[in-house]
Amino acid sequence: MRMRKKKNRDTRISNCSSIIISEPYPANDWKTVFGNDNPVHLEIGCGKGGFITELATQNPDINYIAIEKCLDVAVLAMEKVTAKNLTNVRFICGDANYLEDIISPGILSRIYINFCDPWHKKKQFKRRLTYRDFLVKYGKLLEACHGEVHFKTDNRKLFEFSLNEFTALHLKLKNITLDLHGSDFEGNIMTEYEKLFSEQGMPIYRCEICF
Amino acid sequence: MRMRKKKNRDTRISNCSSIIISEPYPANDWKTVFGNDNPVHLEIGCGKGGFITELATQNPDINYIAIEKCLDVAVLAMEKVTAKNLTNVRFICGDANYLEDIISPGILSRIYINFCDPWHKKKQFKRRLTYRDFLVKYGKLLEACHGEVHFKTDNRKLFEFSLNEFTALHLKLKNITLDLHGSDFEGNIMTEYEKLFSEQGMPIYRCEICF
Repeated sequence: MRMRKKKNRDTRISNCSSIIISEPYPANDWKTVFGNDNPVHLEIGCGKGGFITELATQNPDINYIAIEKCLDVAVLAMEKVTAKNLTNVRFICGDANYLEDIISPGILSRIYINFCDPWHKKKQFKRRLTYRDFLVKYGKLLEACHGEVHFKTDNRKLFEFSLNEFTALHLKLKNITLDLHGSDFEGNIMTEYEKLFSEQGMPIYRCEICF
Repeated sequence: MRMRKKKNRDTRISNCSSIIISEPYPANDWKTVFGNDNPVHLEIGCGKGGFITELATQNPDINYIAIEKCLDVAVLAMEKVTAKNLTNVRFICGDANYLEDIISPGILSRIYINFCDPWHKKKQFKRRLTYRDFLVKYGKLLEACHGEVHFKTDNRKLFEFSLNEFTALHLKLKNITLDLHGSDFEGNIMTEYEKLFSEQGMPIYRCEICF
């Protein structure tokens, strides 16, 4: 879904400037950014920010970095976080391909990937956020903390592809569900997209990948 | 589904006696049973035998053992194999709980589990053929040959449970599909049950587990 350019977008973004991190990225020094030594989790593709806002509200002792490359969506997420006066969220308007520039290994202990682009054509599979090259990147960042990727999607083909990528790299999986909303899983926080699709009875696929 | 007792069942079974293996089981000596040293594969719960008959026809250089505990179903499978004059299939009317009495470790290189009973109630989960205790049994039989279990089901909850059991035991998975008939997978042989359900548009789940 392509977003229409938001009215006064640039003004609205600059109103949120205190929670936006621009280049040069802190890399090793996220402790200074957040002003504490709490664990750092990251969401790739935070969209309109419903998920990260609720997550950060529920977990004030965890710091969150939200990456979103589409500014017209990111601004909505930033405004949600600002409205709630959350001090434990920062935004990066960037691309997950360059994660290693944003944060150094050994800092992150969790990455969330929610309803990422399924990239339907075979030629595009390497753009999927669960493609093996991305998994290798996540591994480099997460291994020192024995971190996890928490992944959910409504796209069966993407989930199937992802399971095969995870197992091809011998990654340990847990809490696999093929119907999140029909499962025993507790504490799920829904994204805006998830609410829409699960209300239509579409199953949501989810799993956790351990590094 | 409970099978009605087949008419003349016992006479029909005795007509197939040359392909039925009774106690004491050969354990180590399946070479004598088959009269050759070909690889040995096993199907647990062969049902009406459509799958094993086609598989054995396509692969004359592999020996197949088919286990089925329901005699009224097994007789149909035996008659299919007999009608095709297949020399590479043997039947055991027994229970997968006692696999270790039937065959010794180091002989089997593949186990097929097709559309096994999903045992819906939580208390019954340990009867599922993909419950961890069964996986440990399969492992003991298959490890020496680096064998595989090929598993398929139409039951989403059973498949989800199974994936979690496989990963809890750190087993290597491959060729996972959440919609076998909509996938690129080649050479699938359908069971009678599979034909029925896939024609109704139900997705078939499948994966291979490596030991």
